[in-house]
Amino acid sequence: MSTSATEVPSTDTLQAEIARLKLELDALRPKDGSTEEIYIGNYLLTRLEQLGVTSMFGVPGDFNLGFLDLVEDHPSIDWVGNCNELNAAYAADGYARVKEGSLGVVLTTFGVGELSAINGIAGAFSEMVPVLHIAGVPSTAQQKVKPMLHHTLGDGRYDAYTKAAEQFTIAQALLTNKETAAAEIDRVLTECILRARPVYLTLPTDLVYTKISSARLKIPISRLPPANEPDEEAFVLDEIMKMVETADGDIIILVDACAIRQHARQEVKDLVRKTQLPVYAAPMGKAVINESYERYGGIYVGSISRPEIKERVESAKLILSVGSLKSDFNSGNFTYRIPTSRTVELHSSWTNVKYANFPGIGMKQILPKLTDRLQRYAERANAITVPRFVSPIPQEDTKEITHAWFWPRLATFFKEKDVVVAETGTSSFGILDVPLPQNAMFVSQILWGSIGWTVGSTLGAALAAKDVNLGRTILFIGDGSLQLTVQELSTMLRKGLTPIIFVLNNSGYTIERFLHGKTRKYNDISNWDWTALPSVLGDVDRVKSKTYTVKDKDELDRLLLDDDFGVQKAKEVLQLVEVIMPMHDAPRALKSQAEMSGKTNQYVLEMRGDL
Amino acid sequence: MSTSATEVPSTDTLQAEIARLKLELDALRPKDGSTEEIYIGNYLLTRLEQLGVTSMFGVPGDFNLGFLDLVEDHPSIDWVGNCNELNAAYAADGYARVKEGSLGVVLTTFGVGELSAINGIAGAFSEMVPVLHIAGVPSTAQQKVKPMLHHTLGDGRYDAYTKAAEQFTIAQALLTNKETAAAEIDRVLTECILRARPVYLTLPTDLVYTKISSARLKIPISRLPPANEPDEEAFVLDEIMKMVETADGDIIILVDACAIRQHARQEVKDLVRKTQLPVYAAPMGKAVINESYERYGGIYVGSISRPEIKERVESAKLILSVGSLKSDFNSGNFTYRIPTSRTVELHSSWTNVKYANFPGIGMKQILPKLTDRLQRYAERANAITVPRFVSPIPQEDTKEITHAWFWPRLATFFKEKDVVVAETGTSSFGILDVPLPQNAMFVSQILWGSIGWTVGSTLGAALAAKDVNLGRTILFIGDGSLQLTVQELSTMLRKGLTPIIFVLNNSGYTIERFLHGKTRKYNDISNWDWTALPSVLGDVDRVKSKTYTVKDKDELDRLLLDDDFGVQKAKEVLQLVEVIMPMHDAPRALKSQAEMSGKTNQYVLEMRGDL
Repeated sequence: MSTSATEVPSTDTLQAEIARLKLELDALRPKDGSTEEIYIGNYLLTRLEQLGVTSMFGVPGDFNLGFLDLVEDHPSIDWVGNCNELNAAYAADGYARVKEGSLGVVLTTFGVGELSAINGIAGAFSEMVPVLHIAGVPSTAQQKVKPMLHHTLGDGRYDAYTKAAEQFTIAQALLTNKETAAAEIDRVLTECILRARPVYLTLPTDLVYTKISSARLKIPISRLPPANEPDEEAFVLDEIMKMVETADGDIIILVDACAIRQHARQEVKDLVRKTQLPVYAAPMGKAVINESYERYGGIYVGSISRPEIKERVESAKLILSVGSLKSDFNSGNFTYRIPTSRTVELHSSWTNVKYANFPGIGMKQILPKLTDRLQRYAERANAITVPRFVSPIPQEDTKEITHAWFWPRLATFFKEKDVVVAETGTSSFGILDVPLPQNAMFVSQILWGSIGWTVGSTLGAALAAKDVNLGRTILFIGDGSLQLTVQELSTMLRKGLTPIIFVLNNSGYTIERFLHGKTRKYNDISNWDWTALPSVLGDVDRVKSKTYTVKDKDELDRLLLDDDFGVQKAKEVLQLVEVIMPMHDAPRALKSQAEMSGKTNQYVLEMRGDL
Repeated sequence: MSTSATEVPSTDTLQAEIARLKLELDALRPKDGSTEEIYIGNYLLTRLEQLGVTSMFGVPGDFNLGFLDLVEDHPSIDWVGNCNELNAAYAADGYARVKEGSLGVVLTTFGVGELSAINGIAGAFSEMVPVLHIAGVPSTAQQKVKPMLHHTLGDGRYDAYTKAAEQFTIAQALLTNKETAAAEIDRVLTECILRARPVYLTLPTDLVYTKISSARLKIPISRLPPANEPDEEAFVLDEIMKMVETADGDIIILVDACAIRQHARQEVKDLVRKTQLPVYAAPMGKAVINESYERYGGIYVGSISRPEIKERVESAKLILSVGSLKSDFNSGNFTYRIPTSRTVELHSSWTNVKYANFPGIGMKQILPKLTDRLQRYAERANAITVPRFVSPIPQEDTKEITHAWFWPRLATFFKEKDVVVAETGTSSFGILDVPLPQNAMFVSQILWGSIGWTVGSTLGAALAAKDVNLGRTILFIGDGSLQLTVQELSTMLRKGLTPIIFVLNNSGYTIERFLHGKTRKYNDISNWDWTALPSVLGDVDRVKSKTYTVKDKDELDRLLLDDDFGVQKAKEVLQLVEVIMPMHDAPRALKSQAEMSGKTNQYVLEMRGDL
């Protein structure tokens, strides 16, 4: 990755541009038929292979079985048959997050299958994750006649599912003929990768085995965004530098979601290291910067932030904000107190300097140049003290496992390269306050917040982690959330994956109890025999899994200290730890968030006379 | 229900018309504020109560918690918290099917929840089932400002979910103010009930507790369709009678899906009994007519029909087709051989006589009049022999439980008033060939065919069966399908329901093996410890469930003959029977269907050189 000081586009950028133009030319040129012909189904698979895809998620259905033959026979793409389509979409999302630069792929069947997956696709849209949704659909002949096939609405509307998909994907390719199939496939894959958002592809049963030229496959699909316009970029850099001068060294960097999605992790790290500026992260940017890095100050989340972090971030004269995404849960319920006049916002394809917006100036290419210009301030920056982001384990009188104790205690269990997955709710809030180790990865769904999502995404994340040489995959999930998607434990077992799953058993939907209905029955759930789940869902002989229940601090402590659990078994079997926690306890950050959300609903209670 | 011989509209019809006009008037009249005011949330609940709703399905989420308080406090509507939203939508569908004349209700939260349910809603659309989908959404104030709340797409498109819902519901009400709320609620409920299709209602958090006049609640929502135009109806009757004369007694009745959905079950039964005409059913009309009735000949499904049924139906000089729905699986892959020139088709809101279409002439009101006119042919009709629909248990050498043996054997286990639920696949095909007892109800999803659907719908069906005084709920499902939605067993246990669940364990997706990929790995699934499921999913003490595994004919036979199983325990606990079946066996009808579907895909294999 180029970090050249000059403002000349890098070789990578130029090559990406060349590939793009070649592909466009190829789509327009008359075909001479001299190249090798391959099935459209295999064209698609080759493209996915080129983009680093090694696992495909989904559920078989009669409109995708022909294509599945090709997938099953493919040497490097593995078919991960999921238990249902929503879980499959979640898995594709988790896979894409961990395997940065590649994409997640989910294959479903017409109607029933694709609609079951749609919440997972919408989540990938919301959270900016590159996922390809392939729907196996009736043949092109049937699509013209529109017979009343099973999986149809009975009224001939064969386009209804696509219309729904259009709401939640940034591009759609409805393959209808062999002439445009390759270009259409390439178009949506390019969009998917470059814009880090889901795309939708319909694959009619007959076209899977229609042959087309393989010529285009020689030109790779670019993973780099188009180059910034050089003059505008130079102007923007100058504008930023003016603010830097004025700030007189009182600058901080704030890293957020889109720094990850735009494959700018390395560029951000370079910026941070070379400039020595203090750096903070929003929840969705957690662990982009090593949380043990000495210039890292912790998580900024508006008024939910720890007081010292809030004070430091909000008082800075210049905030370099990278990939900001100001959703309610990512911004402390919209309580950022950072004036626009002191902010530079770097985004995927635009930049804001104070109030000025510069469309077309994307972070990936401007960041290295900014880093170069800022390097000379490194010494001054280094003089600013940054209180380290630490999380001491509190001494508590109670033996109960409280959230206040649990998360700091777990922090010492994490290792480098762990993939830490936190379910929406107590887990995603609890993990915020504790640092993750170097090169650990944080996976959560803070904007979309679909409960149950982490079970599927842990499956995808664990598969991807093997590809990219990451370590253990560790999931934190509440009992309520696990019930939504529990069957996917079965797929983890079948695939021989070895995540560690902490099931926080607090008898129901705790996040909701804090938002509303503390003692309401609708927030209760059935208590399951959690530790029996793996053996029932596929590990009948109990050789692929091990389970534990911990009822108090001592029991959890002993387990976490046991290398057989944390090291040895973590390589061999799936481990599930049921953690008994009090019903009405929650992490600090969730309590604060709930208090603020609660205010919004307060007038309702007043109207009802409950207050 | 009127079966009057005159062509004057019935009292019911007239009263329905009066109610409709009053409601319309009320919507337009200025309010004087003298009536009692109630919360909009309670207005909705009262309407549902009036329509016979006793259970509401769904999952709590922070945008519906306020409304859930009202639901939980409602004296006659029970909150059935489901494990996930898709299962909840399936349950609402199953509930509506069994509780004819009422509707199913599913409550979800904004975005994540409603999208998870959408496949279930689309299935209700396809199969014509009245389901109300209530989505708890942000307050009206937030919907104007469109902040980046959790559960949004991050781009301010607050209407994206509604746009998706529009594809799969026949009417939508997006409540935005107190002035129109009551009329909007009434409008979608009327559409839902009358057209037997799903509708969508968004309920903003603030409007739940906004007070409105309760005046409209005094006028009930009509369950009767608008009256047929009398002159046109009389003309249609005359046209039909001309065909009847020509047919010279060689007439049969063919009953299909929409006879159920239009609440015309009684009218159809009267037609059949009073005219003594031979009657057959399409798969989706199974059990509308008692299958032990002496004039009932069995299931007609095009060329998949048993030969004697096919011959008899297709040779009739006049086919009175009631509520026909010619989908692939409901018509033997479009192999009806019934010429239009010999057919009268009665539908919900139109009638076809030969090639002539009469829009606006609906079955519910014309049927009693047709019955009256046809009664005088009863004697002649009775002279036509109808071979009884029976299904003798075959003698087989093997001890294995084959489909050929299983379904006829089960037929003798069924009792009057059983609710028989058959999952798409081997079960839905297997059950076709065997008769159900008098007043039994058949629940299946032959058009939509979403696997896993029956688990949710069994929950809903079992709850509804209690309301309408039906008997046991008996589910047949394959191992592959059960994996999609298994967690809903937990809700059945929590609600103390006592279905009998036969899990056909044949190691994977058998219907798909017959369609394509007979030995492919993608049709395999993990083998679970099926009989341990109830104890793990909530019945930890094993007091609410009992499970069995039967490996051969003798074992199953003994179980079915045991009254403790079929009678006593069927009232007390949930029972799950794992039935071990050979992997490559299937019912006759499925083999035929697969053979025909296979032909469609054959050219694919030819192109690949596999043949």
